[in-house]
Amino acid sequence: MPKVWATSGADLHLELTGPRVRAGLEVALREAIRGGRLRPGLVLPSSRALARDLGIARNTVADAYGQLVAEGWLATRQGAGTWVADRPTSAPRQVTTTSRSAIHVRYDLRAGVPDLSTFPRTAWLAATRRALSAAAFSVLGYSDPRGLRQLRTALTDYLARARGVVVTPDRVVVCSGFAEGLELLCEALRARGARTVAIEQYGHPRYRRLIEAKGLRPVDLTVDGGGAAIDQLAHADAALITPAHQFPIGVVLEAQRRRRAVQWAADSGALIIEDDYDGEFRYDRQAVGAMQALAPEHVVYAGSASKSLAPGLRLGWLVLPERLVDEVLAIKEQLRRLSSSIEQLTLAEFITCGGYDRHIRRARLAYRRRRDRLVAMLRREAPQVRVTGISAGLHALLELPPTESEVDIVARAAAGGLAIDGLHSFCAAADGSRPALVVGYAAPPDYAFTTAITRLCAVLPH
Amino acid sequence: MPKVWATSGADLHLELTGPRVRAGLEVALREAIRGGRLRPGLVLPSSRALARDLGIARNTVADAYGQLVAEGWLATRQGAGTWVADRPTSAPRQVTTTSRSAIHVRYDLRAGVPDLSTFPRTAWLAATRRALSAAAFSVLGYSDPRGLRQLRTALTDYLARARGVVVTPDRVVVCSGFAEGLELLCEALRARGARTVAIEQYGHPRYRRLIEAKGLRPVDLTVDGGGAAIDQLAHADAALITPAHQFPIGVVLEAQRRRRAVQWAADSGALIIEDDYDGEFRYDRQAVGAMQALAPEHVVYAGSASKSLAPGLRLGWLVLPERLVDEVLAIKEQLRRLSSSIEQLTLAEFITCGGYDRHIRRARLAYRRRRDRLVAMLRREAPQVRVTGISAGLHALLELPPTESEVDIVARAAAGGLAIDGLHSFCAAADGSRPALVVGYAAPPDYAFTTAITRLCAVLPH
Repeated sequence: MPKVWATSGADLHLELTGPRVRAGLEVALREAIRGGRLRPGLVLPSSRALARDLGIARNTVADAYGQLVAEGWLATRQGAGTWVADRPTSAPRQVTTTSRSAIHVRYDLRAGVPDLSTFPRTAWLAATRRALSAAAFSVLGYSDPRGLRQLRTALTDYLARARGVVVTPDRVVVCSGFAEGLELLCEALRARGARTVAIEQYGHPRYRRLIEAKGLRPVDLTVDGGGAAIDQLAHADAALITPAHQFPIGVVLEAQRRRRAVQWAADSGALIIEDDYDGEFRYDRQAVGAMQALAPEHVVYAGSASKSLAPGLRLGWLVLPERLVDEVLAIKEQLRRLSSSIEQLTLAEFITCGGYDRHIRRARLAYRRRRDRLVAMLRREAPQVRVTGISAGLHALLELPPTESEVDIVARAAAGGLAIDGLHSFCAAADGSRPALVVGYAAPPDYAFTTAITRLCAVLPH
Repeated sequence: MPKVWATSGADLHLELTGPRVRAGLEVALREAIRGGRLRPGLVLPSSRALARDLGIARNTVADAYGQLVAEGWLATRQGAGTWVADRPTSAPRQVTTTSRSAIHVRYDLRAGVPDLSTFPRTAWLAATRRALSAAAFSVLGYSDPRGLRQLRTALTDYLARARGVVVTPDRVVVCSGFAEGLELLCEALRARGARTVAIEQYGHPRYRRLIEAKGLRPVDLTVDGGGAAIDQLAHADAALITPAHQFPIGVVLEAQRRRRAVQWAADSGALIIEDDYDGEFRYDRQAVGAMQALAPEHVVYAGSASKSLAPGLRLGWLVLPERLVDEVLAIKEQLRRLSSSIEQLTLAEFITCGGYDRHIRRARLAYRRRRDRLVAMLRREAPQVRVTGISAGLHALLELPPTESEVDIVARAAAGGLAIDGLHSFCAAADGSRPALVVGYAAPPDYAFTTAITRLCAVLPH
């Protein structure tokens, strides 16, 4: 046995010098067992023998053996020595997963992301510094599932002022973005026995899938020039709509439909989820206030920092009807869905000190200019393409002549390194919807914007 | 009509001076409608008439009316003027929810939270600054559902070095804490058809409830001096265990059971979830390495920054068997469960620059001293109480004489402002388990620690 071991010992390339002799021995033994050089069942030399061979203290070897026994690598029995324990054999391998986007994206005109190059790093960091130095240490623990009071208070002021939301801090629930907010609402709806959620025929397929994953059935609402067809709500238990700026069609829910929608919710006891994803960005006129204000007990207002600052912050918020607050909190509490305390405090400070408003004003101006440039360029370079929807938000809808194939255009763009989505990506029904492109003009950094829209024009029909 | 309006107008207390006349008019109208002073159906004066009454431009009034029509507060029809629209009536009320802990906590000896007063704010902020200034702006978008590469790389180095985990960056999945990690795993298990998860008889009731909420059935494992009774695993599809330091009993899973557990998983295809919640904190000897290393394809290693830094960071990690990586990522992707980019980058930088190791070394020393002081004080003041479990972690188990009632002691402590948990809070079976207290000695800040344990001794049997 000692002979076998001596051979293995040579293989170990032990560096038994310096102060960490025992640690080195342990690592070497672990690696040798893991790599299969020391096979299960192999009896090790006594600690005395190995210590002599290696010229180290016997206790060092005994301690290392003891450690590896405790960890399950070695086994021992009084009188039977120490041997390599049985264990399932499986060498760790590098995981290879398939890349999700094979084509290299050089220019990104997909909707949904703001210009991240303008994220106000300096101001944000300064807000973090102020927030961290002012914070009681207790907020770094498991905090209020509603979100920290500082952020809920700041959001209350901001949402009432900027979006006309009817809100008190007690009705605000901080979440990690709209997706988590929707997930919480679906779970609360499900627990109340809800079965269907009406959603706009055009929208993020992600949210449709999320609703399905939560055991609810999505029911489509047609979308026309006046927004979602509210008269189709019928017997749905809830409705998810984008009244300020339909995504991706770009229309506003007309006034009469807003009223009819809240009346439907009030009459039927159903819940409206108002996704105000880009409510801050309207360029042609003052933004239409939140629909939630018409019926705060029947409409959930949902917003986030994903378009106004950056999705990477993972901060969103719900303003809930009173009857839903406890239910949503119970779910958050059970699953311990909390957002980072430091980022909550930072956003609270950033709003309170005026940094948030300043950033949005700047972004609004920049996006408005981009939209104007896009529209002007299309008029010149691709007169057959029609830009529809209101002058707002972070995306535009480009209607193509009916003979064009949006799939072909998207493919041609991709071949040139330009990522862009066709309207069909956002449409559940595979019907022959008019060919169109959804252009997210906010995503590229400034220096890449002109090239991006030039490349876009190059693949459009002239 | 104009007469009715004139009265209402007087009630509005409009401040129609300054540059924001139109905004002021809108706010006043909205408030008057919301508050019920302008009732549905009330016809408003023409914009011309109101402008004259108020001495402002007609367009200002017309614009304000238009805005409120778009928002649904007013309705209008060509030739019929403008009136207050119908809407569901419901005044917003302040939500009153019942307080969760009626008794005021002045001293907290509950387990599960580290000493938050020592959170390294300055070093953390410095790491944020370095991380933010080095980051590519793209990481602020919707990022890799695994977590940012920088953090996965830093964790790979750390976990291999400090906890002996077999890990590559591709197997690390960042999550918002252990609860989210467990939730993701339960969803993945469920999708594979799993039905039962074996859990230790003593543990956090939160995790039991979470497993149930995800549609899986928890199966109890007895816990004795050698840890969980692995021979009871039988036909479970998965097992959640705390091998390094059973919570809250405080024992280590003995070597033979470690091996038997991984052999069971390998033979049956079941999954072991190793909750290494306080693996860094062992005081009497070198910590036992992660069990995961014995069988990386059958054991999920789960850790977090909640005990090592602060729960408020909401950062945790799973090291997954290869076969589970894609499944867990698909769930994360669908529900858009991402952690804050800035905090991920900060933790990566904090680990890489050595700040994490320094903080843990300091904390380990401090907690060890606290444990020693607690043990010494108990020996002197409450000799009938026996401290059991290994010298490790952030909590101790205090066995009480069998005639004592832990409920009474907990109540006496609470009456004096001291929060502490009885063992029964962590035991699923309502059997007559030995009376004991679970003392979280890490939670109080340093200045409150002595008073906290003095108060504890005062309510213990002498």
